[in-house]
Amino acid sequence: MKHVKCARCIRCGKEYEATPNVTTCDCGGILDIIYDYDYIQANFTKETLKNRQDPTMWRYRELLPVEESTEAPPLRVGGSPLYEEPRLAAQLGLKKLWVKDDGLNPTASLKDRASAMAVAKAREAGAEVIACSSTGNAASSLAGNAAAAGLKTYIFVPSRAPKGKVAQLMTFGATVISVQGTYEDTFELSKAAIDRWGWYNRNAAINPYLSEGKKTVALEIMEQLNWQVPDYIAISVGDGCTIAGLWKGLKDLHAIGFIDRLPRLISAQAAGCCPLNRAIAENKPWEPMEENTLADSIAVGVPRNAEKALMAIRESNGLVVNVTDEEIMAAQKLLGRTCGVFGEPAGVTGTAGVKKLCEQGAIGANDTVVSVVTGNGLKDVANAIAACGEPISIPSDMELLLKAFADKGIDLQ
Amino acid sequence: MKHVKCARCIRCGKEYEATPNVTTCDCGGILDIIYDYDYIQANFTKETLKNRQDPTMWRYRELLPVEESTEAPPLRVGGSPLYEEPRLAAQLGLKKLWVKDDGLNPTASLKDRASAMAVAKAREAGAEVIACSSTGNAASSLAGNAAAAGLKTYIFVPSRAPKGKVAQLMTFGATVISVQGTYEDTFELSKAAIDRWGWYNRNAAINPYLSEGKKTVALEIMEQLNWQVPDYIAISVGDGCTIAGLWKGLKDLHAIGFIDRLPRLISAQAAGCCPLNRAIAENKPWEPMEENTLADSIAVGVPRNAEKALMAIRESNGLVVNVTDEEIMAAQKLLGRTCGVFGEPAGVTGTAGVKKLCEQGAIGANDTVVSVVTGNGLKDVANAIAACGEPISIPSDMELLLKAFADKGIDLQ
Repeated sequence: MKHVKCARCIRCGKEYEATPNVTTCDCGGILDIIYDYDYIQANFTKETLKNRQDPTMWRYRELLPVEESTEAPPLRVGGSPLYEEPRLAAQLGLKKLWVKDDGLNPTASLKDRASAMAVAKAREAGAEVIACSSTGNAASSLAGNAAAAGLKTYIFVPSRAPKGKVAQLMTFGATVISVQGTYEDTFELSKAAIDRWGWYNRNAAINPYLSEGKKTVALEIMEQLNWQVPDYIAISVGDGCTIAGLWKGLKDLHAIGFIDRLPRLISAQAAGCCPLNRAIAENKPWEPMEENTLADSIAVGVPRNAEKALMAIRESNGLVVNVTDEEIMAAQKLLGRTCGVFGEPAGVTGTAGVKKLCEQGAIGANDTVVSVVTGNGLKDVANAIAACGEPISIPSDMELLLKAFADKGIDLQ
Repeated sequence: MKHVKCARCIRCGKEYEATPNVTTCDCGGILDIIYDYDYIQANFTKETLKNRQDPTMWRYRELLPVEESTEAPPLRVGGSPLYEEPRLAAQLGLKKLWVKDDGLNPTASLKDRASAMAVAKAREAGAEVIACSSTGNAASSLAGNAAAAGLKTYIFVPSRAPKGKVAQLMTFGATVISVQGTYEDTFELSKAAIDRWGWYNRNAAINPYLSEGKKTVALEIMEQLNWQVPDYIAISVGDGCTIAGLWKGLKDLHAIGFIDRLPRLISAQAAGCCPLNRAIAENKPWEPMEENTLADSIAVGVPRNAEKALMAIRESNGLVVNVTDEEIMAAQKLLGRTCGVFGEPAGVTGTAGVKKLCEQGAIGANDTVVSVVTGNGLKDVANAIAACGEPISIPSDMELLLKAFADKGIDLQ
């Protein structure tokens, strides 16, 4: 890879050759892929991009850590819509607001960006099997992207994993091992199996390529905004890999001169599980927290990529905001009825955070904001049902309809 | 609309001015929008299209029945991926096979194409409210597309409607009236309300513009294939509007010289509810049938657009094929594990039909086929769960994992 220099430990600075199988540093630190920005700048322009037909994340290949000869995996990952939302902006009191709906990816979450990268790197490694342990979107996106590429997957889930997600995994043909125990037990068995059989490891806090896949969400946002930098980009935060990837993409674009300044990040966590935001707010090392939120995809009490995430938030001079489950579900409805976007609870947590910061006056009428929706509401129908209330229920009778409308205060003259 | 001549009854030939509110003919027949193909041919070329950035269905505006000044509705409808599937083609014994995943539309079904058109025409009509009666994808896609455009929706559902779909509707801010009675009762109350309050009517068998929205799936397929016509296009069929729209799009492209021949349609229905296919097979008028299938979106015993659908299948010299629920669920798994595409039961019925026709030798090694997946599997997780079987379930112990793999015949050396 002519445009990649190495993989460097973010903790101790030790450098490694960027082989497809590189994992974490001897010191335990997570690696970061280091690019040759001079080389990239000489070979990649906004013009090149403008004339490129490919709508997927692979249109940014010059900024991705893959060999020139590596084929893009089959599913159409990326290219999700960025909607300008003037009515919601007005309602919140913002100058401009955009919503990036990443729930429209092939398996319905932003995680597809990382899983597509895992498939590309597994192919470079000559692997035929990819494995991970996860309960959620990472697992289903790996299963789908690998199936499309003809690779086998072994996926370890704790037995509490929702049946729907298991069904998605099995439809995609994954071999699913449901571990009777905690998530930690599940992780340990998967680790032993990965070591034993040499499977390719899709774990965003171990495999440094995955956040390079996730960073494409930032590249897209900026291209869709015609390289006009917003003041803030808001996103929900669980184990920290996604916000770290978002920041990496922005720094890449800044380094090659595609954008002239950097936005500030808004890190939104659930009030019931916010170890990273608490560390920022109190300016202390992060400490584990309980996982008290219905936003399951960000219910991460022990974030596995805390260092990269904290660095991203601090470097960007970012804001942190914690929202209650009620505020999350209110944001789900607000996005649905104002924008026609249906996000899962963790997916809309960023928007809930934006709303709260507006109410607190921390951001306002002079600010432009992008809010990323990270997953589709169809992934978790149960919580939406609970939050929605009941429809009008009547027999087929016009008089009863008139009465029901009157009772509800619906005035149609 | 300079490129639209009129709306013409497909039964008696009577012509009407193509106003936004036009519905059905005095004789009860369904109207078809008639274009001035000479005008279109003079003003629309493949080159124009190639240079157009818009990835949505509105890139085909010259072939859509909207005023030049009508704004495209906000959601990114259309532009769904067409995947070439060499492994599945080989497995089925076909020369070439492509899968069009229309479940990646904003509300996760092909129906978004019709609902976006409904929103555009409602705006032309100056309407602020759109209404429909439906239990499924038409309702949720209308609610989402209208919400994004700032229009109100009143949606009538029979009380048996699945809670998940009601939740989606209410998240999108629709006023949902759950009618205690049959679908017919629901339809009658909605009709009375639409008449009384003058709401814009989104009903694909009444509003002739909606299948013009659906036809964009054909326009996209052909552009994605670089105008090389496949031998067959397969799709599932319920009330008939979708296959009629598909055919309309193909005929449009043929009329303006973008394609030089027409493919044959494959109409796939559930064996337990196949009134249209039965009419074709027996060459008789269609008759109502019971609705015995788990593929709820095509469980239509009394198809409301039978005439257009039958005409489309016959004109194309099409094939009809009926598949059992078992064959449908097998196709869901086959698409999942071979292509990484997760379709709802009705969504994969077309693929189930293709598989069956291959097994019967009706199509084979010389044929090229496009199979349209019309809706996302996340819409109906319950049936997927039932079809998938159980994962391996063990405590966190390597010896037990080895035993489980051996029991399942998984050989990892």
